[in-house]
Amino acid sequence: MADRKIILSAVLGDGYGSLPFAWRAPQVDPGNYANIDANIRYAQAAERGGFAFVFTPDVPAVRSDVERSSIPNIMDPLMEAAAISQATTNIGFVLTGSTTFQEPFNTARQFKVLDIMSHGRAGWNAVTTSDPMVAANYGKPVADRGERYQRAHESVQIVQSLWGSWEKDAWIKDQATGRFIDPAKLQPINLGGQHVASRGPLPLPPSEQGQPVVFTAGGPSPHLLEFAGRYASGFLAEVWEIEEARAQRDAVRKAAEDAGRNPDHIKFFTGLVTTVAPTVREGLDRRMALSGGVFDARLPHLGAMLGVPLRPQDIDIPLTPEQLSVAHAAPGDPRSGIALRLAQAGWSPRDMLAHGAIDFHPVTVGPGHVHADHMQEWFEAGATDGFWIMPDVWEDGLDAFVDEVVPLLRERGVYPDDYVGSTLRENLGIPEQYGIGGWLK
Amino acid sequence: MADRKIILSAVLGDGYGSLPFAWRAPQVDPGNYANIDANIRYAQAAERGGFAFVFTPDVPAVRSDVERSSIPNIMDPLMEAAAISQATTNIGFVLTGSTTFQEPFNTARQFKVLDIMSHGRAGWNAVTTSDPMVAANYGKPVADRGERYQRAHESVQIVQSLWGSWEKDAWIKDQATGRFIDPAKLQPINLGGQHVASRGPLPLPPSEQGQPVVFTAGGPSPHLLEFAGRYASGFLAEVWEIEEARAQRDAVRKAAEDAGRNPDHIKFFTGLVTTVAPTVREGLDRRMALSGGVFDARLPHLGAMLGVPLRPQDIDIPLTPEQLSVAHAAPGDPRSGIALRLAQAGWSPRDMLAHGAIDFHPVTVGPGHVHADHMQEWFEAGATDGFWIMPDVWEDGLDAFVDEVVPLLRERGVYPDDYVGSTLRENLGIPEQYGIGGWLK
Repeated sequence: MADRKIILSAVLGDGYGSLPFAWRAPQVDPGNYANIDANIRYAQAAERGGFAFVFTPDVPAVRSDVERSSIPNIMDPLMEAAAISQATTNIGFVLTGSTTFQEPFNTARQFKVLDIMSHGRAGWNAVTTSDPMVAANYGKPVADRGERYQRAHESVQIVQSLWGSWEKDAWIKDQATGRFIDPAKLQPINLGGQHVASRGPLPLPPSEQGQPVVFTAGGPSPHLLEFAGRYASGFLAEVWEIEEARAQRDAVRKAAEDAGRNPDHIKFFTGLVTTVAPTVREGLDRRMALSGGVFDARLPHLGAMLGVPLRPQDIDIPLTPEQLSVAHAAPGDPRSGIALRLAQAGWSPRDMLAHGAIDFHPVTVGPGHVHADHMQEWFEAGATDGFWIMPDVWEDGLDAFVDEVVPLLRERGVYPDDYVGSTLRENLGIPEQYGIGGWLK
Repeated sequence: MADRKIILSAVLGDGYGSLPFAWRAPQVDPGNYANIDANIRYAQAAERGGFAFVFTPDVPAVRSDVERSSIPNIMDPLMEAAAISQATTNIGFVLTGSTTFQEPFNTARQFKVLDIMSHGRAGWNAVTTSDPMVAANYGKPVADRGERYQRAHESVQIVQSLWGSWEKDAWIKDQATGRFIDPAKLQPINLGGQHVASRGPLPLPPSEQGQPVVFTAGGPSPHLLEFAGRYASGFLAEVWEIEEARAQRDAVRKAAEDAGRNPDHIKFFTGLVTTVAPTVREGLDRRMALSGGVFDARLPHLGAMLGVPLRPQDIDIPLTPEQLSVAHAAPGDPRSGIALRLAQAGWSPRDMLAHGAIDFHPVTVGPGHVHADHMQEWFEAGATDGFWIMPDVWEDGLDAFVDEVVPLLRERGVYPDDYVGSTLRENLGIPEQYGIGGWLK
């Protein structure tokens, strides 16, 4: 534990940023969504900051109001990562791929090829899909949770078995003797379940890390915890508060122990939306300018979280002592505590909203130490092993984070000075994997 | 027709070459199968020669004797092309993708992303799959031909509709007014058949050529001809003789006319296996050295093709006048005529076999003019629009072709001096495609 350091990752996506109007920011090319060079540039910025990996969510459907805001998705995780892998040398790629709508053979093949082409930097964020808009793109209904997880278990077991079907020293490739492969070490897997099956083998050799790393993501349902405990080496969490994060991290680690695994071999990551700015005030203004009104629209919800009715005309007025005396954090919404602290600190409702009081992940706004403080506190409290960073605007937000925050973390001794190695497993601190999947052990 | 020129492509694959022991050639790194840099180098060599595209077959299964010979497949067509696209500027990518085992939404998405990342250089070789080894990797039985083609029609129609679901001028992306997309021009397709379906839209804008180019490949069955006539802009044929090729090209063009299309908008390609060497003798020796005995094993078959029993001890002895007087081309095998001409020219059976008398595609061996003569003859006879070149060994065979053959073709005025444009459609001489698929017109 003495050597334990924060592990960082950066989200890649539509080429703009996490704010609805990031695409309209003057420093941003509005064509970036379809410009691979933009995501290459961001991955290189993250690599300059020693990030262990970039992470791509994936919800392949049109769900937003595309007339006003961008399409919040990367064009295609695997295809973009294949291109980015050739322009980077150390940063890993953790890419979301559905166990519900993808064939295990295709998943195994494309992730393993990425692992080989990147010299051991690939990871698969294996998730089930319940979004009806995505299901419709595959002409399928949404399956119930039990069926989705049954297929997920079958899919991961088949994928990991296919990855291991080419054993570590199977590839002889001796030009003199003419032996290419030891056929005893490249054998079919013949694995099948209720939903998916594959014969194999997968004719792809191990990478420098053996096999890609399995991640998963989501809220801590019993189904997901069991799934993570059995297969995952990384868990991308959705949490707002430090205590909630610590409890979830403990639950994830326990799930790994329950599956007979070393809990240090599953790393827990919490999200962090960042706006790096010279002052908090400037940061809030930057966020408000690119919010597209989404913060303002949440005013009634903010009032409900605090138990204090808030009128539109009061959006710029900090809460009165009378309001503060009755304000309280609504139970059941972990963001309410954050909102209450912001109100008590004297921020106006508009500023509280710009501060991310009702965002999907924790938000930090201001100069470097604000972000570093959050991360150090969470890390040292055992609430997380690292963070997936979502800059407000990728074009300059990621460089600002690397320039302003990373040096502080290094000064404080909580972040590595350089990459531990060249593979994702080395930089996560988890062992190599060859042969059959961990699920069989 | 006055401007008609030969269109060239090069096959990419396992990183070695078309001969069984290409992986053992001294100039070849035996690790090339898993080394993306090798295929990048070959694509760049082809681009130096003005090739319109690289072509990747795809049979994702272990079918060869892997103890002695390589795995004759590219690691993954789409993932490798994504990487290669970033290291090239003009050459296109025609990649085989199965309509039998792939989801149309995935096919549409990944090929369109390649088209965008390569600035309009992607093509999809849409084929049905009947190989039981491949089917087993997807845990599926082999469907009969009628069912395979029903699904193929549904798949191409869905894919082309998804490609067109983002219309040409849908993407406004005006930072000042805040209009991102015209929602009237990004609409669901809601298309489904007996086997596959998709709602759409596909949130990917047109590329510089609009949409990827659809190809298909195979023998001229009525099912395939109808399929090609309706959808394909390129046809990769399997033929041995010039007359056979001309008849097939006519049939493919007629199929396009029957579907109401311009027959000049479907280009017909024949295969050519090349060994470029200072003399024919040196070329035959090079082929023999890397054959792994596969040519020798075909001696009885060669005898049957000529109607002349051939004994192993006679493999190095040219046919006697008595043998030649009774030799005749066996009907039903179009390669027999080639074998007979080689016998009449005085080659020994071993040399006839090294000459490709029983290969899967025409073979040319020797100095540049041998290859140029073959191509010019076939092209000017209306037997083909171009060739997919399979060098014996990629590492030096493709450069030799570019250096020794391409200049001759240019001198003779049958090959363009440079790329016509930067998109695959421009270099094929076929029109741009936006909006709904040609199949609806």
